[in-house]
Amino acid sequence: MSDQAALPPDPAVEKIFQGVKFSVERRRVLTRDGGTATREVVIHPGAVVVLPIRDDGRIVMIRNRRFAVGETLWELCAGTLEPDEDPAKTAARELVEETGYRASQIEALTTFYTSPGICDERMHAFVATGLSEVGQQLEATEQIEVELLTRSEVMALVRSGEIRDGKTIATLLYYEAFGTS
Amino acid sequence: MSDQAALPPDPAVEKIFQGVKFSVERRRVLTRDGGTATREVVIHPGAVVVLPIRDDGRIVMIRNRRFAVGETLWELCAGTLEPDEDPAKTAARELVEETGYRASQIEALTTFYTSPGICDERMHAFVATGLSEVGQQLEATEQIEVELLTRSEVMALVRSGEIRDGKTIATLLYYEAFGTS
Repeated sequence: MSDQAALPPDPAVEKIFQGVKFSVERRRVLTRDGGTATREVVIHPGAVVVLPIRDDGRIVMIRNRRFAVGETLWELCAGTLEPDEDPAKTAARELVEETGYRASQIEALTTFYTSPGICDERMHAFVATGLSEVGQQLEATEQIEVELLTRSEVMALVRSGEIRDGKTIATLLYYEAFGTS
Repeated sequence: MSDQAALPPDPAVEKIFQGVKFSVERRRVLTRDGGTATREVVIHPGAVVVLPIRDDGRIVMIRNRRFAVGETLWELCAGTLEPDEDPAKTAARELVEETGYRASQIEALTTFYTSPGICDERMHAFVATGLSEVGQQLEATEQIEVELLTRSEVMALVRSGEIRDGKTIATLLYYEAFGTS
């Protein structure tokens, strides 16, 4: 699917910042007329988002305190890849940590870039089933509450805009439209 | 919908970097046990994404060279808000610049955050109809080709993962599920 071979190589790269969750590089990019310009890119290790569906059909949603946007958001559970980690393993781990549920089955749904104009973050979406409760294991900075909603309740929250996290909207609607097939 | 009043105020903010398309701040965030930690946040002015539908029902998609991810992506046209700009005005402008189509009607669809774990970017999604061709006006660093696809062709590309831009997936599937009502 990639057409990287057809693209010019990225010329100069300058690391300008290293943070806890991401870094920033400055790159020299080519213009259409053969000149160059500089643009910054957020470098991110990639992440997973997990749609957990209980045996009774209810979806395990979270209310997640997000300091970056100053709101508590309705989301699906999610988390960042460790170096060289298989995304399915990240999904299983984050599901337990953020929701307190362990899954007997985790299926890949799709993948997408969250903000490819400025950031290389790739999101791997999964569906988790065969859930059993084992207890939440939050990190110190996380403030997350679990809520169980029916599929129609979730769709109503997407439609109304009350669910306003892009990865959560994309994952819920992808599953609604296509399932895991 | 916001519950900002119920959240503790963001304590210290340190601007650590100013780029062309975004900046980065370091914030001291509160932990659940009453301590503090520092986290970086990408500060973005917000953006629009536009689903343009021609009178013949075909959708105006773009193939967009994205240096941040090293790929040319299938996307809906999109762009960044100017300071204090009405998102509907941004949508009308970016539609012309990136696709060469002017719209007689632009309707708000929904809004969402693209990556709220690290970035405050809010995306405003619109549907554009009553299209007439006026000619593309690309910026020097943009490499964008327009492609006209039927609704079923677009849905097939979402399902297969060939469309892998999150805002494009969320916007297309939101419109497919709910329309503009």
